[in-house]
Amino acid sequence: MSRIPMHPNSESQAATTMTIRRAGVRAEKKAARPAEILEATFQEFLDKGYDAARVEDIAARLGISKGAVYFYFGSKEALFAAMIGDLSTNLMANLAETEEVARGSATERLRACITLHFRRVTAAPRGREVIRFLLAEGRKFPDLVDRHFNEFAVPVFAMCQRIIADGIASGEFKPSAAELHPQMLLSPILAVAVDLLIHGDRRVVDEAITIEGYLKAIFSGISATPDPVV
Amino acid sequence: MSRIPMHPNSESQAATTMTIRRAGVRAEKKAARPAEILEATFQEFLDKGYDAARVEDIAARLGISKGAVYFYFGSKEALFAAMIGDLSTNLMANLAETEEVARGSATERLRACITLHFRRVTAAPRGREVIRFLLAEGRKFPDLVDRHFNEFAVPVFAMCQRIIADGIASGEFKPSAAELHPQMLLSPILAVAVDLLIHGDRRVVDEAITIEGYLKAIFSGISATPDPVV
Repeated sequence: MSRIPMHPNSESQAATTMTIRRAGVRAEKKAARPAEILEATFQEFLDKGYDAARVEDIAARLGISKGAVYFYFGSKEALFAAMIGDLSTNLMANLAETEEVARGSATERLRACITLHFRRVTAAPRGREVIRFLLAEGRKFPDLVDRHFNEFAVPVFAMCQRIIADGIASGEFKPSAAELHPQMLLSPILAVAVDLLIHGDRRVVDEAITIEGYLKAIFSGISATPDPVV
Repeated sequence: MSRIPMHPNSESQAATTMTIRRAGVRAEKKAARPAEILEATFQEFLDKGYDAARVEDIAARLGISKGAVYFYFGSKEALFAAMIGDLSTNLMANLAETEEVARGSATERLRACITLHFRRVTAAPRGREVIRFLLAEGRKFPDLVDRHFNEFAVPVFAMCQRIIADGIASGEFKPSAAELHPQMLLSPILAVAVDLLIHGDRRVVDEAITIEGYLKAIFSGISATPDPVV
């Protein structure tokens, strides 16, 4: 498995750029910025999957040539990596916002953390599609999967663990709450995401109701007081 | 989207069978039974994904001709549908076994249900690969997805709901446990499955430990008695 260029300025991209450096491409690149190319890439991979997606069809979505796409991204692999990187970066911005919003008691912070993540990662189509891409194509891109995990998932889990530790220290949560792995705490978010990804609009999921009973059960399970108001 | 033939005896399969009915194929079909073809199909789709998988490569895995595969399954679509059907059937047999094993108090039955499902659906590679296939290729096969959902997922959810209702009736669980959607109850199983599917053998997940804290928290949350032994 060759190393995946994570940024446009990779060696293979530079080599490709040399071969396509023409005046026509220069004019086109002004018309289509990298962000637009990544958006078209997202749509193309979404519609066709990685294997069937073609760089010429991504270019056609923007009315530009294949060479104009290669000007920024040297290969289909680089395009896929940049697209996942872009989606992950948005999720990471969300993480910073969660830290900001999640103030108050440990119970309030944990609820805010779960609810915000649910809204951004699961309810938002772009957020949940990362899961599909990683599951469908992840084995071809182990570096990308590891990067997403280390830069996005690990900090989210760490945030949950800090909140649980704070809640145990403050007496809000039972000491046994420490055994609750953060991945398990967030698992209903993943379950709703997988449900929406698999069934699309063919089955209506009331995500709010689905999550609500879970929150009640889990908070009731970890709280030091019976029947906490969450 | 054309209708997907769910069984070997579809019209398109019959038509294909006519064209390939040769003595050589007849000899080959004795050598490779449908079960072996489905196993080779699973491995091929697993390695390459649906789009890149080729019927000739599935045949090559068994040392038979493409025609011998078409003798049983009339198209790549039919092969994929039959393979998912085969995996789902195994999961349904597991469901029957769970009903059998899950005896005793509602707490014991719910724990047995979660644990058995975890072992068969998540810990077993073939069980969890269904999730990857449905996520990666599900949009091409809506009938297949709906069938899997209705014949496998719905009965599992119904079983969980029956156990929770029994536990509320017997006074083992709080009435609020009724609000716990079964999909949420089983979500940690899905979370571990997704983790294993995305990271493969690059990250060691101690599934038993991961699930244990969750079980403690959720049972503590729904049980009528504090700190139930689960």
